[in-house]
Amino acid sequence: MGELKTAHGVVATPFFMPIATQASVKTLDSRDVEELRAETILSNTYHLLLRPGVGIIRRAGGLHKFMNWPRPILTDSGGFQIFSLAKQRKIKEEGAIFRSHIDGRQFTLAPELALQIQKDLGSDIAMVLDVCAPYPCSESEAKEAVRLTTLWAERSKSPKLRKKKQLVFGIVQGSVYKDLRLQSARELVEMDFDGYAIGGLAVGEPRKKMFEILDYVVPELPERAPHYLMGVGQPEEIVEAVRRGIDMFDCVLPTRNARHGLLYVSRKKTVDFSPGRSDFYEALHITNERFKNDFSPIDKNCSCHTCRNYTRAYLRHLFSAGEPLALRLATIHNVHFYLELMRKIRAAIRAGKF
Amino acid sequence: MGELKTAHGVVATPFFMPIATQASVKTLDSRDVEELRAETILSNTYHLLLRPGVGIIRRAGGLHKFMNWPRPILTDSGGFQIFSLAKQRKIKEEGAIFRSHIDGRQFTLAPELALQIQKDLGSDIAMVLDVCAPYPCSESEAKEAVRLTTLWAERSKSPKLRKKKQLVFGIVQGSVYKDLRLQSARELVEMDFDGYAIGGLAVGEPRKKMFEILDYVVPELPERAPHYLMGVGQPEEIVEAVRRGIDMFDCVLPTRNARHGLLYVSRKKTVDFSPGRSDFYEALHITNERFKNDFSPIDKNCSCHTCRNYTRAYLRHLFSAGEPLALRLATIHNVHFYLELMRKIRAAIRAGKF
Repeated sequence: MGELKTAHGVVATPFFMPIATQASVKTLDSRDVEELRAETILSNTYHLLLRPGVGIIRRAGGLHKFMNWPRPILTDSGGFQIFSLAKQRKIKEEGAIFRSHIDGRQFTLAPELALQIQKDLGSDIAMVLDVCAPYPCSESEAKEAVRLTTLWAERSKSPKLRKKKQLVFGIVQGSVYKDLRLQSARELVEMDFDGYAIGGLAVGEPRKKMFEILDYVVPELPERAPHYLMGVGQPEEIVEAVRRGIDMFDCVLPTRNARHGLLYVSRKKTVDFSPGRSDFYEALHITNERFKNDFSPIDKNCSCHTCRNYTRAYLRHLFSAGEPLALRLATIHNVHFYLELMRKIRAAIRAGKF
Repeated sequence: MGELKTAHGVVATPFFMPIATQASVKTLDSRDVEELRAETILSNTYHLLLRPGVGIIRRAGGLHKFMNWPRPILTDSGGFQIFSLAKQRKIKEEGAIFRSHIDGRQFTLAPELALQIQKDLGSDIAMVLDVCAPYPCSESEAKEAVRLTTLWAERSKSPKLRKKKQLVFGIVQGSVYKDLRLQSARELVEMDFDGYAIGGLAVGEPRKKMFEILDYVVPELPERAPHYLMGVGQPEEIVEAVRRGIDMFDCVLPTRNARHGLLYVSRKKTVDFSPGRSDFYEALHITNERFKNDFSPIDKNCSCHTCRNYTRAYLRHLFSAGEPLALRLATIHNVHFYLELMRKIRAAIRAGKF
């Protein structure tokens, strides 16, 4: 349990960042996200570069003003998104060349430009541009990804590339190869970043493998700097990752699952954080027939706007009838579940019960 | 300027009802609608009968509880929706036989059942089942519609068919035929309903024709009872209809237009309600290129949640990027515009300036 100082306030760790890919946590406005007491949100350089374009956000006075969000924002560099473009991108030493998934326009994103854009966006935490290898990948492929990631990280260190008070994080790569992961971590730590992310995980590797990697990578990272596990994960994965020293998380699961009617429900008011327990919650498909006449809230232990005001039967009806409100009410609940889990984790840490 | 007493409070007239067809004002939750200070909302018997089914809403404790809405609800009888089904419905003396637009299931809706359902829904204002003739239609077709509408209205008068304190309104039909309209109005007034709706308008007839019909129908209706013009309309049509003695309105325009990015903007802080003026507002297509870098609110005279917190550039981005939030923020603004127009009309009436 620690804290992270940003240009928009101090955030208690460990924390979870809801994803606002295109400057909106899907279906929610900034007031909704504030009411959920989200500490920090994540937005994507890649998506904002394509739409609306960085110029518009700069002229708006930065991303905070553009979306009217007063608290910290972390911007991902776009490495992961560009890697996901598969055939539509080429990685060269100078940077990544890719075509927009929207209109096919060609872009070249050099590590310097990725930082410059995040400076223009005015995010609190900027990520260096990395090369995210796929899973599975050969050792030589992973090695090349680490080489470029380190090279690009070095080129990202210039103070000119960051806004005043903006934090810049490096990203550890190396796939499932221990030597490469350790090398990547040591090379980045050498450069003294404000924080360290572990990237290239939750891309299809077994869960056990991911924890194994955390077990040997986290000890390489300086304790005073925050450790961010990118793109993770299921609630029980977050608990296990916190146990291994992770301070920051982001994941599409709560928001994406909500839009598919998959809702998280706590099993008990309090969570037992003993190792290996994942029975503290279940996920229910609200569209199921059995909720037709269920006039209880989604989760009787939940204090979110949705659970305080609406029933499972109403939610099920909204989903069945294709009412857009379904998506927002479900998103509010799932994001609340994740943020509440983090609050419980922090309380348990404070109480020495973690 | 008057008022209407309902089981869920007194409503000042004239007022506009946002449409919650399927127990949700599209994209808004009940708190949003409360914050907009909507006095009354409209929901549809036809749609609720099909989905989620009346049994579920009855078991929920009525429509107010089901959707967590504390103020008055008017339920339409389904006549208009069934008429819109065209080939998929048959009108007989006993009632309307139709197939669900969702799954083709066959339903028979008799006037008694339409009221019984609205009793189960627990709405504050129930509408009798009417026969809504298309436009254009022959005089003999319109005559038959009036005959059945009167017959069905008589069968709707039984006190058993209404909930305690529930108001029941008759619906004047007769298409564009003056004699038929007058006959329909007189026959309904004879039956002494709690209010009178004028139906079968805004279905394609010229606007001039609609006002002509109001000019001779409204004087037939008792002054002490509210007059409701169904499905109308554009802001300037509402103003002109109030001038002709209409107290209640509903229309899909503000909500539907919002979802298409068409937003209402006031031209001035105050509205000149002199006859024939429709220059008090304009409608802008927020997706237009020219709003890309427009960091002003949609309407600088507007106090809605959207205008207080977000810019045209942000709204345009959300629409362009396909973000679901766009629909809600636009809906909030447009519904606010309509409700604010009604507040201005009421204030003008109170001040003797209408």
